[in-house]
Amino acid sequence: MSNNTRQYAIGVDIGGTNTKYGIVNHRGDISYSGRLSTSAYATAEAFIDALYAVLEPVMNQVGKENIKGIGVGAPNANYFTGSIEYAPNLNWKGIVPFASLIGTKFNLPCSITNDANAAAVGEMMYGAAKGMKDFIVITLGTGVGSGIVTGGELIYGHDGFAGELGHTIIRYGGREHWSTGLKGSLEAYASATGIVLTAKEMLAATDQSSTLRDYAPEDIDSKAVYECAMKGDKVAQEVYRFTGQVLGEALANFVMFSSPEAVILFGGVTKAGSLLMDPVREHMEKNLLHVFKNKVSLNFSELKEADAAILGASALVWAMKRPIL
Amino acid sequence: MSNNTRQYAIGVDIGGTNTKYGIVNHRGDISYSGRLSTSAYATAEAFIDALYAVLEPVMNQVGKENIKGIGVGAPNANYFTGSIEYAPNLNWKGIVPFASLIGTKFNLPCSITNDANAAAVGEMMYGAAKGMKDFIVITLGTGVGSGIVTGGELIYGHDGFAGELGHTIIRYGGREHWSTGLKGSLEAYASATGIVLTAKEMLAATDQSSTLRDYAPEDIDSKAVYECAMKGDKVAQEVYRFTGQVLGEALANFVMFSSPEAVILFGGVTKAGSLLMDPVREHMEKNLLHVFKNKVSLNFSELKEADAAILGASALVWAMKRPIL
Repeated sequence: MSNNTRQYAIGVDIGGTNTKYGIVNHRGDISYSGRLSTSAYATAEAFIDALYAVLEPVMNQVGKENIKGIGVGAPNANYFTGSIEYAPNLNWKGIVPFASLIGTKFNLPCSITNDANAAAVGEMMYGAAKGMKDFIVITLGTGVGSGIVTGGELIYGHDGFAGELGHTIIRYGGREHWSTGLKGSLEAYASATGIVLTAKEMLAATDQSSTLRDYAPEDIDSKAVYECAMKGDKVAQEVYRFTGQVLGEALANFVMFSSPEAVILFGGVTKAGSLLMDPVREHMEKNLLHVFKNKVSLNFSELKEADAAILGASALVWAMKRPIL
Repeated sequence: MSNNTRQYAIGVDIGGTNTKYGIVNHRGDISYSGRLSTSAYATAEAFIDALYAVLEPVMNQVGKENIKGIGVGAPNANYFTGSIEYAPNLNWKGIVPFASLIGTKFNLPCSITNDANAAAVGEMMYGAAKGMKDFIVITLGTGVGSGIVTGGELIYGHDGFAGELGHTIIRYGGREHWSTGLKGSLEAYASATGIVLTAKEMLAATDQSSTLRDYAPEDIDSKAVYECAMKGDKVAQEVYRFTGQVLGEALANFVMFSSPEAVILFGGVTKAGSLLMDPVREHMEKNLLHVFKNKVSLNFSELKEADAAILGASALVWAMKRPIL
């Protein structure tokens, strides 16, 4: 990796509703950033035209010759094929050769990967995993994603789909996942969606008083659980304790797979802080084989949440081995 | 890798009771092999002296200048440190700098790793994983071990201890492991020891007639369960079906971690053939996210059982990146 600070990468983070983009240098300084609707565009081509229109003036400003490439984090993006494949939350259906479309429009090499992998690369270059070669990033948002790095390389597996740790089964015969149908998967518990389900189950199972009962059941969302927990509500706090326990048990399994130096938790659910982290740590350690105990550092992401996704996507460019143009 | 057929590697497989060794060329032809007691030697130094004594005449025969190095597979061996660390089944207690001791005695580079990792390297070079870059080997013997290869490299993790998949929890709150104390780990079910426990539990839970009842409870071992199952005993067959189910569920989790092209099952327990493999396949597929279904090939090892360990250990020499001398 050259450390030429005159070189730039474009980082694009595509979410179901909005897309964030920025121009980033090697140090991770974002010199320009912006936001674009994702859902307003019926086709990937129309979206890419719009993205080009907002980025063209900025590219001219920093000098197009100084831009090394474009990195994209997107749901269901496959690093190997450069395609976004059957993304349930995007308008663009089927298999979209996204990296190729971007590369052609921008005349720049483009690398894409799923959002959790982009987060892992971002952590490795600028965040809590700086200097590490073996770590796991778990993204805790609407869903649970993961990016796994071993020996300094992201694990992609033979088809580019490795790292679906949110779908591993942690409670045999447990809660059925609303979309996959799998029973007892991590995502069914540790996602924002899972937290809401846990809260509703706990409220139904007890008569204990709780400020969560001030909400109509359909109004209980993860924000409500978070706010009640922060104000000291015991039921809401127990929701986080249980969530942390299940996540900690899952992390123990992941540690015994790849023996990482650190596990980094990332995303909205981590706002609960020690309410989540304390039980995660306790139950991870409790379920580890002796040789792994008290060796794995467990951290929240250090990246500013608004910037993390752009940084992660841009970092793909510096690590680019397989540009698809 | 050069394909010089005049070059040789020494492969040594250390078990708790016996050690097997052989001289192997690049094609995996074993030109000389032998066996030595492990448990007869109170110290690693005495064992290595004995090993040298039996190997010296053979090394002279093929020409010592043609021997590239020594690969060792051993329980609790750490590839990074070259040490055998606190191996419960060996006489040599504490941390033994094994690679260094071998290297000094033989004046050859030596690389060591745990037995399951050696098996994975063996499968990659000569066996069912030939030409693959992403696969997992699960060893099913007295215990359950694993060797994980991604992108053509064994996963070692930050400390050399990655790949302890036998100790991942697959049944929350399940059977307590006789040695680790963990509850519901894969090894508690899918090892030979676990199979015997399952058989005893099933016999106790039902009045169903079974040829296993002809044995005194303390005489029921994995060989008895195997023989009864092969002769058509329904209870013994149900033991394998259940074992296969638990293993299949665990494999689904592993596949969603590293997305391997293949999972290869290795070791004594696999002798049960389709009695084990059919339920493994069924329950692995059942628990996979859609994107992984019907993509992972599931195979038994193709290496001759007597040779596999020697081949795997010798293969470490050809892959040698970190010789410790």
